[in-house]
Amino acid sequence: MAKLRVGVDLGGTSVKVGAVVDGAIVARRAVPPGGSLAECMRNIADAARGVSAEAAGLDPADVDAASALPQTLGIGLPGVCDDAQRVVLDAPNIPFLEGQDVAGAAEAELGIAVRLENDANVAALGEARFGSGEDFPDFLLATLGTGIGGGLILDGRIWRGPGGMAGEFGHMNVGHGRRCGCGAMGCIEAAASAVQMERRGAEALGRELKLPELAALARDGDAQARAVFDEAGALFGEALAQVALLLDLRVFLVGGGGAPVLDLLHAPALQVLGQRAFGRSADDFVLVPATLGNDAGILGAALL
Amino acid sequence: MAKLRVGVDLGGTSVKVGAVVDGAIVARRAVPPGGSLAECMRNIADAARGVSAEAAGLDPADVDAASALPQTLGIGLPGVCDDAQRVVLDAPNIPFLEGQDVAGAAEAELGIAVRLENDANVAALGEARFGSGEDFPDFLLATLGTGIGGGLILDGRIWRGPGGMAGEFGHMNVGHGRRCGCGAMGCIEAAASAVQMERRGAEALGRELKLPELAALARDGDAQARAVFDEAGALFGEALAQVALLLDLRVFLVGGGGAPVLDLLHAPALQVLGQRAFGRSADDFVLVPATLGNDAGILGAALL
Repeated sequence: MAKLRVGVDLGGTSVKVGAVVDGAIVARRAVPPGGSLAECMRNIADAARGVSAEAAGLDPADVDAASALPQTLGIGLPGVCDDAQRVVLDAPNIPFLEGQDVAGAAEAELGIAVRLENDANVAALGEARFGSGEDFPDFLLATLGTGIGGGLILDGRIWRGPGGMAGEFGHMNVGHGRRCGCGAMGCIEAAASAVQMERRGAEALGRELKLPELAALARDGDAQARAVFDEAGALFGEALAQVALLLDLRVFLVGGGGAPVLDLLHAPALQVLGQRAFGRSADDFVLVPATLGNDAGILGAALL
Repeated sequence: MAKLRVGVDLGGTSVKVGAVVDGAIVARRAVPPGGSLAECMRNIADAARGVSAEAAGLDPADVDAASALPQTLGIGLPGVCDDAQRVVLDAPNIPFLEGQDVAGAAEAELGIAVRLENDANVAALGEARFGSGEDFPDFLLATLGTGIGGGLILDGRIWRGPGGMAGEFGHMNVGHGRRCGCGAMGCIEAAASAVQMERRGAEALGRELKLPELAALARDGDAQARAVFDEAGALFGEALAQVALLLDLRVFLVGGGGAPVLDLLHAPALQVLGQRAFGRSADDFVLVPATLGNDAGILGAALL
């Protein structure tokens, strides 16, 4: 019988909980994170029992049924976890998690083993097993959203780094002259996040447009809209080139709100990548959208 | 009895061959690379038999003695090797190696197993086992010389990357406005190599000085000389910050002609590193000279 795993995507405004069997989400719920660690863990435990019961074909109200317990549970969250994947060291968006043994608290509620992981790493793991990374042992998942996040898979596993903070791709320097929200100059986040592309679009066209509208204009041949993606794509390529130079990665996945406009970023990014990475040409690289979208968090967390 | 290993540091102008026992070079020779693969391999084989015989206490002239054969031999070279560590894919400074089964040719001469590796990676491996990297499973060795090279050790092993080209730290972008010899803008090599520091010193002081002289002036309080190291150190710190952001590495070794001036680069580099790497401060990083110097190549190659 297939193993029932539960993945939890714990965000600042919503907690998504899914029962996963053979790489498919067979039941899902969204609950609020609550205002304290105890409340958050109760909400997660209730939802985990609910989706497990539903996956097992039981009445979800029958939360005490032993068969309604998942066999493993993983939690992805926006923060840094300790090496043992139990304590949250840093989580600016969910302060009540900080310094807490979150895995222990979840285990006390559920009675099964729980592991934690940073949400960007979890998404990369999801893509590695079930998404567009599944054929590649080594890749970077770059998420273009409000900011730019990153998750690294090396030799088929999450690379967390000695302190668990690896993957801060968004603040790598690409040498443009703009200041990033973090205070530094030249971060790729300040040039190619979904939000920044919208901002450049508004500057170029003199009106506010959402990214899909701006992309539609560019695809229809609007030169000003096109220029926004050409510039962002070239700088994104420069950022990917940094990763290629240091690690010789050849595969890059793009997630977040920027994924649907990758068709517009692709050519300028690959051109720069091919120029900057010695001994390699644009043809040596794979630059593709992540395919799991918002489900990457649940699917990846279920694998922890 | 301790295992006798031979390490070969194959360069464009000289081939250094050493017999290594328990991490110490007990016998060494330098021979010319020759003008062809066959000649190069004969020179290496003769030197390997010579140092092995010397290490075994035999007359080095007695090259046919079976006991004068090393048990393993590794070759570090300035180029890219295939995944199997047998064929040289690219070696701009020693063209006759390119496309050749160099390991096979060496094995035919010597009758023992031979493995190849890029020389920067080999140096990092040497430092990892016998040098200032020995307490650290994860670090970057940055070599400040004519250019800037890099070797990455992750989880205690060389990180070669999917195509064997990892570690091109010298061409990472730090956003300065100067053009690098490679054609790109902003490479750290164009700001903090030993040669570039000498060049900035000549510009600032109006006369040519070798790096040790420039460093002596800076240590004696010369403001112009000091400014050269302050600027190079800050940009070097920005480059290290890229590696910290992406991989969360905390340990950086500095080799090459720049290693003896690390005392002058240290404070400005750590200041930038602490500012740029979120959630970490200057105290979280280790920035130390590599300790094996020119022997890192032989010692690392002997470990292959």
